[in-house]
Amino acid sequence: MKKFLNDPEDFVAESVAGLVSAYPKLLALNETPLYVRRKQSKRHGVAVVSGGGSGHEPLDTGFVGRGMLDAACPGRVFTAPSPDQIVAAARRVGKEQGVLLVVKNYPGDINSFQLARDMLDIPSEQVLVNDDVASAYAQHGGGRRGVAGTIVVQKIAGAAAQTGVPLLECKRLGDKSNQATATFGIALSSCQVPGAAATFDIGPAEMEVGVGLHGEPGQQRSLLTNADRVVSMMLEPVVQDLQLVAGQRVLLITNGLGGTPLGELHLLHHVACKQLAALGVEVKRALVGNYATSLETAGASITLTVLDDELLSWWDAPVHTPAMQW
Amino acid sequence: MKKFLNDPEDFVAESVAGLVSAYPKLLALNETPLYVRRKQSKRHGVAVVSGGGSGHEPLDTGFVGRGMLDAACPGRVFTAPSPDQIVAAARRVGKEQGVLLVVKNYPGDINSFQLARDMLDIPSEQVLVNDDVASAYAQHGGGRRGVAGTIVVQKIAGAAAQTGVPLLECKRLGDKSNQATATFGIALSSCQVPGAAATFDIGPAEMEVGVGLHGEPGQQRSLLTNADRVVSMMLEPVVQDLQLVAGQRVLLITNGLGGTPLGELHLLHHVACKQLAALGVEVKRALVGNYATSLETAGASITLTVLDDELLSWWDAPVHTPAMQW
Repeated sequence: MKKFLNDPEDFVAESVAGLVSAYPKLLALNETPLYVRRKQSKRHGVAVVSGGGSGHEPLDTGFVGRGMLDAACPGRVFTAPSPDQIVAAARRVGKEQGVLLVVKNYPGDINSFQLARDMLDIPSEQVLVNDDVASAYAQHGGGRRGVAGTIVVQKIAGAAAQTGVPLLECKRLGDKSNQATATFGIALSSCQVPGAAATFDIGPAEMEVGVGLHGEPGQQRSLLTNADRVVSMMLEPVVQDLQLVAGQRVLLITNGLGGTPLGELHLLHHVACKQLAALGVEVKRALVGNYATSLETAGASITLTVLDDELLSWWDAPVHTPAMQW
Repeated sequence: MKKFLNDPEDFVAESVAGLVSAYPKLLALNETPLYVRRKQSKRHGVAVVSGGGSGHEPLDTGFVGRGMLDAACPGRVFTAPSPDQIVAAARRVGKEQGVLLVVKNYPGDINSFQLARDMLDIPSEQVLVNDDVASAYAQHGGGRRGVAGTIVVQKIAGAAAQTGVPLLECKRLGDKSNQATATFGIALSSCQVPGAAATFDIGPAEMEVGVGLHGEPGQQRSLLTNADRVVSMMLEPVVQDLQLVAGQRVLLITNGLGGTPLGELHLLHHVACKQLAALGVEVKRALVGNYATSLETAGASITLTVLDDELLSWWDAPVHTPAMQW
């Protein structure tokens, strides 16, 4: 996998500088330690801070802005940010109302955010995101991974924080969004961390079913089949996990892992809508595109969030970030 | 290249249906002949209609909406739309003030749009987009190709049409945007039309310099080098073509061809900003992302538009489409 790259050591710093310079009215950069924050800070209220390994763009840095994240801390590629990045960002954007930390369920992230919380002198709470259904059955400890559902948690907690909702209520909404959300992903290709070898090998007719956001092995390696069948392989475990029944309303995110063209994501979304309609489930809101990626991986994930009136109204609240605006 | 696909014959129809269902408040679908139009039509004023081969998403269908395109006609992958698609779309969205057709400079597109104009019974004008500097020197007839600069022409003509500017003035602004715009692209991988073979072969250390949006051969095949050098290989011919001098203001579009991660595009953008600053050129506006793609091609293009006050104010005018909103 060929890359547009200077020194791999400088990849994240150069990339994040480019993001911030592309959105000069929205974003501000702190170089050392590295974090991205809203250019126009909130005057008061809870600050929402997230972060994680780089290589998943636009997650998390692309969701900094009004109505979502106040700051995001990008680690090295596929590596957790350091505690000092998180502490510096939280101190910069946090007010006396406190900081809500949105953390994906990976040991490195959990460790860094916990160390940061221990150092913070303002109130803090944490929402742990673990939407990846496939990894529920994985042979590793620590439970389900946090993947594309992170966007839902960041959006809903961020919308609440934007309107002055107190810290514990922001945490409740974040936890509720996470519990209402499940994701399943399939990869058609591997990816490559800048300066390293390919993350995994995959044959020319194979797909990795239940892949994680870092090319973690899935539940099974299968032969690639048609899109109708691929979508049902993603949708069925998500529907089962959420115990979805006819009459329920959902947010459907058809997410690209980075290397799949938008036209194919639209096709997957079309098929997912048909299959959900056949179940009597109403797709009330939708998002289609590359939102939580794994470098240049060809692949996709499907995320569903069961919407009640509360989650729907926070999802619909105005948002203005590089990657999402309404 | 593995794809999420059912019958390749159905790819465009299924994909476009997915796009429209993802934006139910913005877009409406006409299945036969196939086109996408604004759900809320303009009451009066010039309608702007574009289109071209599929496989370049979000171009053109993703730019239908308020302040940009009134309708877009997607052809088969890398194939011009048929005249009946264009006629049907133009009749549906056109009013007595006429239709402006934004056409990329390819023989198939020119032919289809000309045949459509011959059949239309309302006034029509055409803007031909030919921003691709690399193809100026190509060994084929017909002159420069239309690539990512199409977005600039669609945005500026669409903004003018939205506010009631008459047909000939919309055409003048479209032509002026085109003349102020130049693009140069580099590919690191080939792509594959659904149901067909790879468009071209490329070695593991090579890049195609001056590639078109359909994998057309570039000016040269080179060894991949670092991002600083790659950016200068794209920027220099663009700067030369536009005869840019210190003190001028530009719109900079750092566009992905589909398979390159957003993090790398941000890095290229960062480098391009530095190189333009060294020339004394002010990057007044910027766009970074996958806007005019070539299926899953890993690669990027750089587009510059020289901005005067007139072009800047139309670029800044509000726009609300799936792929661009402000």
